[in-house]
Amino acid sequence: MTTPASAYAALEKQFARISALEAAQGMLHWDSAVIMPAGGAEDRGDQLAALAAVTHDLMTAPQVGEWLAAADPKTLDLWQQANLAEMRRLHAHATAVPADLVEALSRAGSACEQIWRQARPSSDFAQVQAALETVVSLTRQSAQAKAEALGVSPYDALLDQYEPGGSSAAIDALFADLADFLPGFLNEVLEAQGPEGDGPQGLFDLKAQEELGRRLMQTIGFDFSHGRLDVSAHPFCGGTPGDVRITTRYTRDDFAPAMMGVLHETGHGMYERGLPVAWRTQPVGRARGMSLHESQSLLMEMQACRSQDFFRFAAPLIKDAFKGEGSLWEAEAFHRRAIRVRRGFIRVDADEVTYPLHVILRYRLEKALVDGSLTVADLPEAWNSGFESLMGVPVPEHRLGVLQDIHWYDGAIGYFPTYTLGAMTAAQLYAAALQAVPEIPEALAAGNFAPLLAWLRENVHSKASSLSTDEIIRQATGKSLDAGVFKAHLRRRYLGG
Amino acid sequence: MTTPASAYAALEKQFARISALEAAQGMLHWDSAVIMPAGGAEDRGDQLAALAAVTHDLMTAPQVGEWLAAADPKTLDLWQQANLAEMRRLHAHATAVPADLVEALSRAGSACEQIWRQARPSSDFAQVQAALETVVSLTRQSAQAKAEALGVSPYDALLDQYEPGGSSAAIDALFADLADFLPGFLNEVLEAQGPEGDGPQGLFDLKAQEELGRRLMQTIGFDFSHGRLDVSAHPFCGGTPGDVRITTRYTRDDFAPAMMGVLHETGHGMYERGLPVAWRTQPVGRARGMSLHESQSLLMEMQACRSQDFFRFAAPLIKDAFKGEGSLWEAEAFHRRAIRVRRGFIRVDADEVTYPLHVILRYRLEKALVDGSLTVADLPEAWNSGFESLMGVPVPEHRLGVLQDIHWYDGAIGYFPTYTLGAMTAAQLYAAALQAVPEIPEALAAGNFAPLLAWLRENVHSKASSLSTDEIIRQATGKSLDAGVFKAHLRRRYLGG
Repeated sequence: MTTPASAYAALEKQFARISALEAAQGMLHWDSAVIMPAGGAEDRGDQLAALAAVTHDLMTAPQVGEWLAAADPKTLDLWQQANLAEMRRLHAHATAVPADLVEALSRAGSACEQIWRQARPSSDFAQVQAALETVVSLTRQSAQAKAEALGVSPYDALLDQYEPGGSSAAIDALFADLADFLPGFLNEVLEAQGPEGDGPQGLFDLKAQEELGRRLMQTIGFDFSHGRLDVSAHPFCGGTPGDVRITTRYTRDDFAPAMMGVLHETGHGMYERGLPVAWRTQPVGRARGMSLHESQSLLMEMQACRSQDFFRFAAPLIKDAFKGEGSLWEAEAFHRRAIRVRRGFIRVDADEVTYPLHVILRYRLEKALVDGSLTVADLPEAWNSGFESLMGVPVPEHRLGVLQDIHWYDGAIGYFPTYTLGAMTAAQLYAAALQAVPEIPEALAAGNFAPLLAWLRENVHSKASSLSTDEIIRQATGKSLDAGVFKAHLRRRYLGG
Repeated sequence: MTTPASAYAALEKQFARISALEAAQGMLHWDSAVIMPAGGAEDRGDQLAALAAVTHDLMTAPQVGEWLAAADPKTLDLWQQANLAEMRRLHAHATAVPADLVEALSRAGSACEQIWRQARPSSDFAQVQAALETVVSLTRQSAQAKAEALGVSPYDALLDQYEPGGSSAAIDALFADLADFLPGFLNEVLEAQGPEGDGPQGLFDLKAQEELGRRLMQTIGFDFSHGRLDVSAHPFCGGTPGDVRITTRYTRDDFAPAMMGVLHETGHGMYERGLPVAWRTQPVGRARGMSLHESQSLLMEMQACRSQDFFRFAAPLIKDAFKGEGSLWEAEAFHRRAIRVRRGFIRVDADEVTYPLHVILRYRLEKALVDGSLTVADLPEAWNSGFESLMGVPVPEHRLGVLQDIHWYDGAIGYFPTYTLGAMTAAQLYAAALQAVPEIPEALAAGNFAPLLAWLRENVHSKASSLSTDEIIRQATGKSLDAGVFKAHLRRRYLGG
């Protein structure tokens, strides 16, 4: 006989298996990006497709619905209740959309992405337009189905896949605040920062770059018996909490991109490592969502490691790693270069002042694509006029505009806002950490991340998905996310107060 | 409605999924052995257990039995018929043994292996005896259940897991022949070969060893866009036919073990690469069994690459790789050292003359353990007396005797004979290849493996599991496996005729 207790127990067992199979997929994705010879792609595709299929079958098995109906939150403790709520959310996503639509969307995304890879270098939007129309049309169908299952708007249903509980109404307000502030602020910063000086020139030994990265990871507290640092074309943090796989890419011309990238990914990795061990196999034990995940990487990279304090510690290490000499290798010079602001077209190359403008544009456009107020045919023109009004310069070609990012072409719509929510959250969390633990900056200057990490563990990592993103931010900082702290951070860093 | 055709089509789909999930397990095993940080073991264990569980569920699902009953060989072509027969065999293995016995055996093997790792260094058989008794007892239960399902003896049912269709009656006859021949032959060889000279001394750069290995792999025809060479504690060949993962281990004292090991594993790898692409996802498309697999590695290592012809090609490469000078770096000296025979206690260090004696001992003992004529308590004494009568020297301690191999302690009983069946098969196949393509030795001497590989592709690799091991050998060599060709090979190589 199914009791509420036996139903919940059965769910934990089922989701532990699902979680392990998803972890296996994650490891094979890592292998594809880092290790796999090109000729292995076809076999790997079969493996990932089979894993996706059995995982979907386990999630949508009829008994899962029965167990979810029979489980009773009143018989559960708070973490179990949150776990059950996460199970229901994941189950709703998995069951809302018929299997043939899931497959059609997956195939449309793969096909469109392939065309996009050819269309981008030649700035030829027309080449990919039809394929993108298919992706958008199928995504709208999927969003509609998920919206009904979750009781939210279609865009919010897509957003919920990446940012559980995220709401476009809240994002609208936050982004309106930033869109109002940033263009004028950007002009002030560009005027104030003066001419760009040279950085250290030359070729930077890749082995030395890697060793520097490892040294800094260890400084932050990364445990190499539970993780690795490798190379991939697109840096990411994958693996599992017990086996965190960070990647980066090196260029011989400049050591800074890989170094800052490693610090960024280490922020992601420390979040994974700090998730509660007892809940590792369950939905409630996972990282809360993409905005909080990005907040952890950006807190590490942007807040902690682009600070003057950090460079007081790091400058001698960097100088030593590359046998540097002279004033370009001093802490103050590193810091000045690390916070250089530039008006640019490419999101992934953007600094923290202009980055939100890139994201706000994409957020507005993808929302309009989903609600039908913008067609794919009108997208390039909408991009170009939106970009010019936010950034103050016209887009010269689609390669530097609407064709630059893989996301939409690959079927990932609803993801973009998490980057800037993450940046704002990072600023708000870091300010709260400094208020609670005033010795953090001095500790960073001594290469001691323990006080910062302890605060993050207690206030963010250990919460996993037991609370909503908003509750985690409120408990940690005393208020919901608002743009004020982020704006204050930017003013202080870039205009000196 | 289920028709014979729809049933067979459903089976192909089901087994393609099973095959992809097994390939995923293989890749994760590779990762564990080569890449994974120690702290990842727990998460990995969860992933592999979940994969094993869903794979077993797919294999034993009720509809699979129904499809197998409904499929009709008369409606199928020859490869499909062989595929269906393989499906039935795999299904019989999976369904014969109740799930709780499978799990108990798996847990008993893991536990016993852990104890064995402690017992071996101290030669303390008593420490592991009880755990091994549990493994043997559960293995006998499993063997009994599989014997009834397959209609063979319990030992042959275990053997069938590794060597499909293998028969202990046939092995008894082959091994009796060898056991009769080898002890006396060994004495002759040891007397004839004279004193052991020095090989090149010094420390051999690991990078140079690796590059030499890659060079030789490419010479054989290994395609690095479909595979990799890495390092692991215990060399193996894993991965998939489209992505072959070979490993080796290097020692600075001597380059020969890694070099010969790479050649051995490349033989395994070329077999995988040569399996028919069209059948890759199906049981009939797999390598035939462990004895044929071992025949491919031993044919490459022992037959082709310990020949004088091969060293005419390889000696200058080796000399160049390590900047060697003098007569120790000449082809004849390499060859002489490569076929040195020694009376030793450890199987994995054995040469090709003494290796079968190690295997025959283990085969006799494990067969007696399974039929109950030998108890685990009596095993050490039976080992020691058996070893002395075959090899002519007493075993000084269990570390060098009954405790040396992981197989039994890990639950792998019925595997050992495939090593020597492989060696005999290698000799018989190689002799047939030389007869059919007399230019093979001269080609090897020029570093050209194409003629040998073409013969193996046509006569072994491309057959996959469409025929029995015996049929493949008969079609390729004109007769079933017998000890004669192997003995003739040994006589020719070690006594010069």
